[in-house]
Amino acid sequence: MAKELKNFTKRADNYSQWYNELVVKADLAEQSAVRGCMVIKPYGYAIWEKMQHQLDKMFKETGHQNAYFPLLIPKSFLSREADHVEGFAKECAVVTHYRLKNDPDGNGVVVDPAAKLEEELIIRPTSETIIWNTYKNWIHSYRDLPILVNQWANVFRWEMRTRMFLRTAEFLWQEGHTAHATREEAEAEAIKMLNVYSDFAQNYMAVPVVRGVKTANERFAGALETYTIEAMMQDGKALQSGTSHFLGQNFAKAFDVTFMNKNNEPEYVWATSWGVSTRLMGALIMSHSDDNGLVLPPALAPIQVVIVPIYKNEEGRQAITDKVLPIVDEFRKRGISVKYDDADNRRPGFKFADYEVKGVPVRLAIGQRDLEEGTVEVMRRDTLEKETYPIEGIVEHVASQLDDMQSALLARALANRKARTIEVNSYDEFKEKIEQGYFIMAHWDGTPETEERIKEETKATIRCIPFEGDTTPGVCMVTGKPSARRVLFARSY
Amino acid sequence: MAKELKNFTKRADNYSQWYNELVVKADLAEQSAVRGCMVIKPYGYAIWEKMQHQLDKMFKETGHQNAYFPLLIPKSFLSREADHVEGFAKECAVVTHYRLKNDPDGNGVVVDPAAKLEEELIIRPTSETIIWNTYKNWIHSYRDLPILVNQWANVFRWEMRTRMFLRTAEFLWQEGHTAHATREEAEAEAIKMLNVYSDFAQNYMAVPVVRGVKTANERFAGALETYTIEAMMQDGKALQSGTSHFLGQNFAKAFDVTFMNKNNEPEYVWATSWGVSTRLMGALIMSHSDDNGLVLPPALAPIQVVIVPIYKNEEGRQAITDKVLPIVDEFRKRGISVKYDDADNRRPGFKFADYEVKGVPVRLAIGQRDLEEGTVEVMRRDTLEKETYPIEGIVEHVASQLDDMQSALLARALANRKARTIEVNSYDEFKEKIEQGYFIMAHWDGTPETEERIKEETKATIRCIPFEGDTTPGVCMVTGKPSARRVLFARSY
Repeated sequence: MAKELKNFTKRADNYSQWYNELVVKADLAEQSAVRGCMVIKPYGYAIWEKMQHQLDKMFKETGHQNAYFPLLIPKSFLSREADHVEGFAKECAVVTHYRLKNDPDGNGVVVDPAAKLEEELIIRPTSETIIWNTYKNWIHSYRDLPILVNQWANVFRWEMRTRMFLRTAEFLWQEGHTAHATREEAEAEAIKMLNVYSDFAQNYMAVPVVRGVKTANERFAGALETYTIEAMMQDGKALQSGTSHFLGQNFAKAFDVTFMNKNNEPEYVWATSWGVSTRLMGALIMSHSDDNGLVLPPALAPIQVVIVPIYKNEEGRQAITDKVLPIVDEFRKRGISVKYDDADNRRPGFKFADYEVKGVPVRLAIGQRDLEEGTVEVMRRDTLEKETYPIEGIVEHVASQLDDMQSALLARALANRKARTIEVNSYDEFKEKIEQGYFIMAHWDGTPETEERIKEETKATIRCIPFEGDTTPGVCMVTGKPSARRVLFARSY
Repeated sequence: MAKELKNFTKRADNYSQWYNELVVKADLAEQSAVRGCMVIKPYGYAIWEKMQHQLDKMFKETGHQNAYFPLLIPKSFLSREADHVEGFAKECAVVTHYRLKNDPDGNGVVVDPAAKLEEELIIRPTSETIIWNTYKNWIHSYRDLPILVNQWANVFRWEMRTRMFLRTAEFLWQEGHTAHATREEAEAEAIKMLNVYSDFAQNYMAVPVVRGVKTANERFAGALETYTIEAMMQDGKALQSGTSHFLGQNFAKAFDVTFMNKNNEPEYVWATSWGVSTRLMGALIMSHSDDNGLVLPPALAPIQVVIVPIYKNEEGRQAITDKVLPIVDEFRKRGISVKYDDADNRRPGFKFADYEVKGVPVRLAIGQRDLEEGTVEVMRRDTLEKETYPIEGIVEHVASQLDDMQSALLARALANRKARTIEVNSYDEFKEKIEQGYFIMAHWDGTPETEERIKEETKATIRCIPFEGDTTPGVCMVTGKPSARRVLFARSY
């Protein structure tokens, strides 16, 4: 049974298969009966809740408030912004009727043709349209600005090829939608929120990210600029982990949202939107986990420490429990989430394997001999190294191990990224290296045509024009035309 | 402007109109462009978040975990449980297509007829069916039980007549779905969660509730028993505020969910489900508020204390600010949420009116003379009484005022309910009293026919058969037939 738990595909054999199996084995999520939609299981949801909690705190600290807007959007709203409808129309779930009735032929229920909607409703793929239609009534004067609102919600995009957490038809996310009196303020807001995402990824998820701006081809439908954080997975592919959009006045114009400025002249409002989703779960899983299962950074682990007693009889169990309970209390007082698993229906070996697959950062095991010698066995999930440590002072020791592990995971991910990030100067070398899984910094002539050609020929896209790094001009590796600077290419999820 | 804020319908003139206007004036919610769907504004959402936070804590303390299931449900799932489909089919939003395309006539986008779903999908009106279809794979043995899962989600029921928070097409809620090995355990769970709801209503919302069981007519579609908490609004009408259902083995049978018991024999699993929704916001608003606006119990107020400075010039403002900031800190350290509103663009009179309409429990005002005399003006929102109090010790004083107000609101609501709860013995008296807005304890012969007749003739329904109170038998006020005990009648929201 314990063996079975760990018996799944290895990363080196098939990275993609490894991921799919891990999501199920670690009890994070499973496919549902509805095409492309997943069930997020309690353990997976607990990780998402920790992410939500921290992000929500960071949004509030930067002055944002939560609100809630309708799930359904009138079809005509989508058409108001030309690029927006172009971007989303092909993947919309459409509500056409509002009632079922008994099948006259006696086969359950059928759609009642009499209950057809005059105008179809779309399940929100994103909420710019319904929100800007609402903001029209909220904004009259410069005194009503800025509006700094966020929404936690489910959205729906009819994706053809789905993978749990990475790309699902329904997903959970937050979408910030802000309104500003000036272009400068809106641009600053878009960057500020990208930085919030970047801080969160690095300091909580232990996932280093490259911040940058998207090319026109990769922009959000309706944005003037899309900023992104791009993370590298262990296979060298990129995962777009969060985006923040400067929307200019596009949605204000589409929904006629103006304000009277300080000179009492009407102006269109400036906008941003920004979001991260349950996709972050995919980034988290793929960044740190290994062939034994999930590896979680302590900051986001629902259970940070598990204590497993090893005993022969009820008396033995009681003796260990007496010793352990005060330690459990001490962990809790320090704000460390701990589970004492003395369940009798699973053997220690099974428990060890289960918590390893689930990525609990630190495991303590304590048996009869430990009790006599005043020691405990400590195992850290990232290194899988075991040590024997005195029970006295164990809480302090584990606390520092958790801190170490948080930094170690980030350092390891950074090292992996460094080893797999290269500069390339010829298209031939590019083609060779991209097959092997690299972040490639290369020169590009700045045209959508060249970008498109590279994508078709190599499946690599420009992930972003990074904010940081080498800005020396050069020549495009494909066309030989001038290039303003190197940009980041990769294959992506 | 200040006057305008408070210029809305009085309860005595039109209670229903008063409610609708209050929801908008207090910035809680507004109608959206989508029929029957509301926008929950930041201030309203902040109250809902406080409710969620406390309820979630109580669910976790009673052993429940959160998870997430799909928004869309295959149409055929609904038909599996006969009563369930009967109850929900008439109000289902139906997804029939998964793509839009450009209108060949050039008018925006139209539904792409080529993208018709083979089987229609329903936006969940509640999730029993999709969840029990999932539980089938989670449950094999008695060792897999109980499953204690909750979901925070949006649901959709196509209501014909909607009112903000009280009855909307889309609403936010939590739905608990538990699976058990025995009938007794499931029944106990249903009661346990009803008690959690009742505790929450009384101790946090300051809303007293009658706990009881629904008659067959009023049961949830698919339940064997529905338990309810019923609250009385200020007009004497009932608001069903939360329900908990003992579902027996109905859904286990519909989705073929069995487990091997300790004797290794297959048995169907026992189920409960339980939920509260944004409807609680309606109960909260209507229970306590007055003709001046919202009144919020301190336990759920996003801002518990507001401090308004009254000054003539910048120097005056600075002097007050210097005095106030350490007090603000002190409030925060005590866990009291406080806002110091020294915004320059609104006059104190406007601020007073605004915070009154928004139901901030305690308002402090401090001016030049207060500064000289070391005093502050304190106003409590429920009594609207003002007092002058020494600045020294003000935090302690306000803390105790907040506690007092929390109890005072519950006591007032209880007194209102007591004054408006009567026993009635004749149908004539019943008809007269029900017009005036009462909770009426009356004898009923136990038949659905009599219940139906009373509903048609008086618009009153049996809210519940209370757990507590007089259980003396008698005769039905309508038919004269024997009655087991008095039951609770009222008109309801």
